[in-house]
Amino acid sequence: MDTIKDAHTHHISQQFNEELEGVKKSMLEMGGLVEKQVRDAIRSLINADVQLAELVRERDELVNNMEVTIDKECTQILAKRQPAASDLRLVLAVSKCISDLERIGDEASKIARLAIELSGQGDSQQGFVEVRHIGDEVSSMIQQALTAFARLDVDSALKVAHEDRTVDMEYRSTVRELITYMMEDPRSISRVLNIIWCLRALERVGDHAMNIGEYVIYLAKGLDVRHMDVEQVEDQLESVEK
Amino acid sequence: MDTIKDAHTHHISQQFNEELEGVKKSMLEMGGLVEKQVRDAIRSLINADVQLAELVRERDELVNNMEVTIDKECTQILAKRQPAASDLRLVLAVSKCISDLERIGDEASKIARLAIELSGQGDSQQGFVEVRHIGDEVSSMIQQALTAFARLDVDSALKVAHEDRTVDMEYRSTVRELITYMMEDPRSISRVLNIIWCLRALERVGDHAMNIGEYVIYLAKGLDVRHMDVEQVEDQLESVEK
Repeated sequence: MDTIKDAHTHHISQQFNEELEGVKKSMLEMGGLVEKQVRDAIRSLINADVQLAELVRERDELVNNMEVTIDKECTQILAKRQPAASDLRLVLAVSKCISDLERIGDEASKIARLAIELSGQGDSQQGFVEVRHIGDEVSSMIQQALTAFARLDVDSALKVAHEDRTVDMEYRSTVRELITYMMEDPRSISRVLNIIWCLRALERVGDHAMNIGEYVIYLAKGLDVRHMDVEQVEDQLESVEK
Repeated sequence: MDTIKDAHTHHISQQFNEELEGVKKSMLEMGGLVEKQVRDAIRSLINADVQLAELVRERDELVNNMEVTIDKECTQILAKRQPAASDLRLVLAVSKCISDLERIGDEASKIARLAIELSGQGDSQQGFVEVRHIGDEVSSMIQQALTAFARLDVDSALKVAHEDRTVDMEYRSTVRELITYMMEDPRSISRVLNIIWCLRALERVGDHAMNIGEYVIYLAKGLDVRHMDVEQVEDQLESVEK
């Protein structure tokens, strides 16, 4: 009798683990897709590739659907399994994570829309180098944040926060340069503004990648480090280790 | 014996209800604060009131702390009470709502920062009428979304979605006008760009208010209507009613 009961309990807990692994895996897949969306959006802008830009805009619906589906799975796990401790933290972290991933998807779609507008506004390349550079940085921040999530790697998560600060600085100095450029050539205003919108979208992508890093710390250490400077986070983590 | 047990169960469920009402009430308080933050930020900009702008920036920490505290309470309810059905939906909706409220707080703080910058950039009032107008609209959208949440009022939630569309249109046409203005007077670029950032922040506030409206529909009807047009949402609701 006991063996049957044990086998039953074992079966339930195995199913539960599979469900947990399932939402985590789906979230990482969604992350892979939005990272691709950001890279494709930038490529469409740099190469004035309207077809690719339109593809990015179409694929945004896929990203949105993934968010809704994964969120539903998370809610079902909460309702059916009533997870506690680290299992509960995992479900909540996945649920927050997909909301940031969806917003990254929105920014990619916005960049694709700007790429289409820019393709009709002449062929000046002003600001393209910076878009490519910051775009590369935030794409690898997404990747790093997701890998940190998969491995519960707090150090990588902290690195993402440090990189976000670099991106913010580069964003601000590039916008300053572009403002000077517009003042010297007012006919370029519409076009350069579109480049600035694009840089701003990338800067926000960086913020969302950093948020994902924060959920990794929440997941691994049980610490809610939102709204802290990266130095404060490091101090908090040190005092937890002690 | 049964009476004692019943009394005990009754006591537990009363405590549980109080906890649920507690997070909902805290969330509505947080909402009241961020609405005030948006109104104050706009007032500081219109009146070049640097002191008020600095107050808004300081109070953003309060908003951030409220998010962390309420989120912790939600997690504790999930862990301890393992709510199901509409109780679970309430906790999840509150948890999502405070994330949007916190971002509204960020936008208010950003507007306050721009108000401080603008106060040192001369006294042109270009764009102020539009900032005030759109600012009033999005502030009342926040209020309306929160009232809809408090009363589970789906019709009001839908109204917020309709208003968001108006705000988006007004935002786009105002930005177009401001671009023309910059082209005619390139020396105004830095200042006018700050007005555009401010309008953009307000437009995002409207998006977040709309998100809160979507959680109301989720809460009242169990429907996840994110990423739908307002017409699609109305269709979905109709087919549920049937």
